[in-house]
Amino acid sequence: MTSLVASQAFKGRVQRASFLKKLCRPEDLLHHFPNGASIGWSGFTGVGYPKKMPTFLADHVEKNNLQGKLRYDLFVGASSGAETEDRWASLDMISRRSPHQVGKSIAKGINTGKINFFDKHLSMFPVDLVYGFYTKDRPSNKLDIVVVEASAIKEDGSIVPGASVGATPELIQMADKIIIEVNTAIPSFEGLHDITMTDLPPHRKPYLVMQVEDRIGRTSIPVDPERVVGIIESDYQDQTSPNAPADEGSQHIANHLIEFFEHEVKHGRMPKSLLPLQSGIGNIANAVIGGLSESNFYNLKVWTEVIQDTFLDLFDSGRLDFATATSIRFSPDGFKRFYDNWEAYHDKLLLRAQQVSNSPEIIRRLGVIGMNTPVEVDIYAHANSTCVMGSRMLNGLGGSADFLRSAKYSIMHTPSTRPSKTDPIGVSCIVPMCTHVDQTEHDLDVVVTEVGLADVRGLSPRERARVIIDKCAHEEYRPILMDYFEKAEFDCLKKGMGHEPHLLWNSFDMHKALDQEGSMRKIKKW
Amino acid sequence: MTSLVASQAFKGRVQRASFLKKLCRPEDLLHHFPNGASIGWSGFTGVGYPKKMPTFLADHVEKNNLQGKLRYDLFVGASSGAETEDRWASLDMISRRSPHQVGKSIAKGINTGKINFFDKHLSMFPVDLVYGFYTKDRPSNKLDIVVVEASAIKEDGSIVPGASVGATPELIQMADKIIIEVNTAIPSFEGLHDITMTDLPPHRKPYLVMQVEDRIGRTSIPVDPERVVGIIESDYQDQTSPNAPADEGSQHIANHLIEFFEHEVKHGRMPKSLLPLQSGIGNIANAVIGGLSESNFYNLKVWTEVIQDTFLDLFDSGRLDFATATSIRFSPDGFKRFYDNWEAYHDKLLLRAQQVSNSPEIIRRLGVIGMNTPVEVDIYAHANSTCVMGSRMLNGLGGSADFLRSAKYSIMHTPSTRPSKTDPIGVSCIVPMCTHVDQTEHDLDVVVTEVGLADVRGLSPRERARVIIDKCAHEEYRPILMDYFEKAEFDCLKKGMGHEPHLLWNSFDMHKALDQEGSMRKIKKW
Repeated sequence: MTSLVASQAFKGRVQRASFLKKLCRPEDLLHHFPNGASIGWSGFTGVGYPKKMPTFLADHVEKNNLQGKLRYDLFVGASSGAETEDRWASLDMISRRSPHQVGKSIAKGINTGKINFFDKHLSMFPVDLVYGFYTKDRPSNKLDIVVVEASAIKEDGSIVPGASVGATPELIQMADKIIIEVNTAIPSFEGLHDITMTDLPPHRKPYLVMQVEDRIGRTSIPVDPERVVGIIESDYQDQTSPNAPADEGSQHIANHLIEFFEHEVKHGRMPKSLLPLQSGIGNIANAVIGGLSESNFYNLKVWTEVIQDTFLDLFDSGRLDFATATSIRFSPDGFKRFYDNWEAYHDKLLLRAQQVSNSPEIIRRLGVIGMNTPVEVDIYAHANSTCVMGSRMLNGLGGSADFLRSAKYSIMHTPSTRPSKTDPIGVSCIVPMCTHVDQTEHDLDVVVTEVGLADVRGLSPRERARVIIDKCAHEEYRPILMDYFEKAEFDCLKKGMGHEPHLLWNSFDMHKALDQEGSMRKIKKW
Repeated sequence: MTSLVASQAFKGRVQRASFLKKLCRPEDLLHHFPNGASIGWSGFTGVGYPKKMPTFLADHVEKNNLQGKLRYDLFVGASSGAETEDRWASLDMISRRSPHQVGKSIAKGINTGKINFFDKHLSMFPVDLVYGFYTKDRPSNKLDIVVVEASAIKEDGSIVPGASVGATPELIQMADKIIIEVNTAIPSFEGLHDITMTDLPPHRKPYLVMQVEDRIGRTSIPVDPERVVGIIESDYQDQTSPNAPADEGSQHIANHLIEFFEHEVKHGRMPKSLLPLQSGIGNIANAVIGGLSESNFYNLKVWTEVIQDTFLDLFDSGRLDFATATSIRFSPDGFKRFYDNWEAYHDKLLLRAQQVSNSPEIIRRLGVIGMNTPVEVDIYAHANSTCVMGSRMLNGLGGSADFLRSAKYSIMHTPSTRPSKTDPIGVSCIVPMCTHVDQTEHDLDVVVTEVGLADVRGLSPRERARVIIDKCAHEEYRPILMDYFEKAEFDCLKKGMGHEPHLLWNSFDMHKALDQEGSMRKIKKW
């Protein structure tokens, strides 16, 4: 290993003297990555992931024409930056991947069968990892090597992560060897994290979080220093993209939801300051949080998976008191705004392990308002969050089911239609039967589109179908769906099997029309 | 109200003097049951339900030809005895029902559209009730009247339930008026319950259960005495039926599972005394618990929903240390055995509210081994727990998803086939695509039939399909299912949508063959 001189910036971040000696270059660490290794990376929703080591390995494969010859099992809390995992996928470097990903090449790898992807609730993935479920066929029961980005290292060797915690505590816990990338291009995030580790049953304890702002852990991730095989200085920023702007349809959805919240407060089912909000990524989520910034609700709190730019607006509007998540995924402008106003924001935020941010225990206790966008919802309120036409994987389940199962209010928001290649409303997001089910009918309370809001609490499936078709379906699809439902109802009630009526042999005929005629509207008859 | 003289037995059970004056006959309380009332009953899996008042009301309807004229919304923790709710259904007395039921007439009412049944996770039903979700359209936000069976009443008026707790704490909490049936035909169950009530967010607290035997509540359910409108003496036993005996197939399933447990212990993923067991009702569950009675596992503990006869054998074998659930549903012989040996059993048992027995928080913390039987499982490990042919409701979801989502080991056990009317193996329980999904592919770790056990942890969908077909499918259906899978895989990979391959227009063709030709084997081609 060629000796390296540590930069001042690096020394400022690494408190543990013995670690300065472990400073090295990515090329010095290549031998830790044999073909077939089981690898973990820090990172969640494209922030806090390691950059130099993965980029070096990709360069190495590309330069030496090793495509398909260095392949790894890759575990990351959720998606990593495109320049790392997506590039790895394009170089055929990933043989197995879990639990969530973003990128064209990686999606292609999964859907053409090159990558064995499996999808797990983000709250459960780190626990199953510590159970040894994902390494059960490996000799050591450990991950071979884990690469982690740190914004600082403390005197005891523990790691202060950057903009995400994700599954890093558990990845480190399960690592045979550890590589740390100390990122000096971002500020130290010290104090922003609430770190808990994972005990195994029968020794697990309650998460004593009673309020969104409760701190139950420490500020850094403990590390066994002897397992650290190398430390790299990194100066690459997280490669995030700008946020999707809210469109007119999303604004309508946000308005319906805010009206619904007002209704619930009025009837005494929710406090005036609402309950902790969970909101995803995307234009509908942006519109909802944006709408709240102009609402009559104050003293709001957020318990969510990912904090994005619009939460800064909600803070600035004086309406948001505290937010906690497992990652801060700002746009480049958002990060600048965040760093420039660090003093204003840093004590109103807490980042936790994804096992905690997505914990059913805490979500249920706090009575979270959970909001998510699906691929499609059916007339009985099942939802598909992952697989288009039942088969093509998008990004993965993420935390959708963690929140929708355990939230007090489980809300699916979606445009009523999406464009197909030939028809601007060729895809109805309300369908007779979902082609893949990730959220069951037992999990949703509210379905909302730009058309309207269906409150399905306490309704039988046949009642639900009428409300969802009536309130949420696009006017073009309303008669088509009602026709399906009424035929199914007539048929099934007659046969004494009418609890949840379906025309089973025709339940995907709208999808067939889309596939064969280019639009779900082209369906001839049921 | 005609004055009644309390029996000695009754006086022995009712410690609160003022309640003795409330003693009355069912006929005195008829006026509390106007048509359209929202009613709650105690009871869970056919034990601990009120008997005299419901029977009187059924008699009243029958005698006076009031069928269809006195109809109620009926909420019971889970199923009640057939002589009450099923008789009510046969007399058209139920307009809405949740969350779980057993009985031919009630199933018929649901499937012919007379009863609006909705199905909710048993852990969530009582909470949603307290949220006011099920009474949101009623003027008072309360249930009109709740009828509860007690095995005793304490001096403060609080209720000692009988063989189940279920949703009784929350039903009482939400009751406008309360009727108590004091059952003197069963012993007082005092000391056997651990009662907790439901706070609303933001005031909910953790359930501080760290071990199966931890007691966190009181021994009786608090009641506002002013809401008690009448007390009835009851002397009817719970009408339970004998348990289903284990058959040869179930024995094979039990053997596969015990071998799997041994494998997990050997590889250090489970302690020698295993982890808390959850097991359902039925012949497979009986075989599994029976098998453990003859196994090499000791110091076992049970954290489950319902305790049934075979658990007594497991206690008697010296292998079971403690069991907790929300109900004890013994056969008549089992109850006799239990009462006769009260001293041996009573301090090894604890009955809790269904919200606690089925709590994801506790199930996850304790690392429960969850085992359940479905209608069907598909090749990608989705499962249908409720609706035959996608539409016909059996009993309801129950706690299946509470346990399967949060358990450390989520296990589905099923015979590989069931008979159809004309073919002893006309129904394959392993299908290409479930016609209704209650458990998603993200929730199951193990699928087991009498043929074998598929361990699907960490596998991608295409890997899962191969293992499930190979290990679990009946030999007659193995080539049929493999043919489906291979065609779907070829087709979808080619189109770049092969993450979870399906032939979407043909995915229910096995069900079609069953419907139209009497057996799934009769499928011609895919």
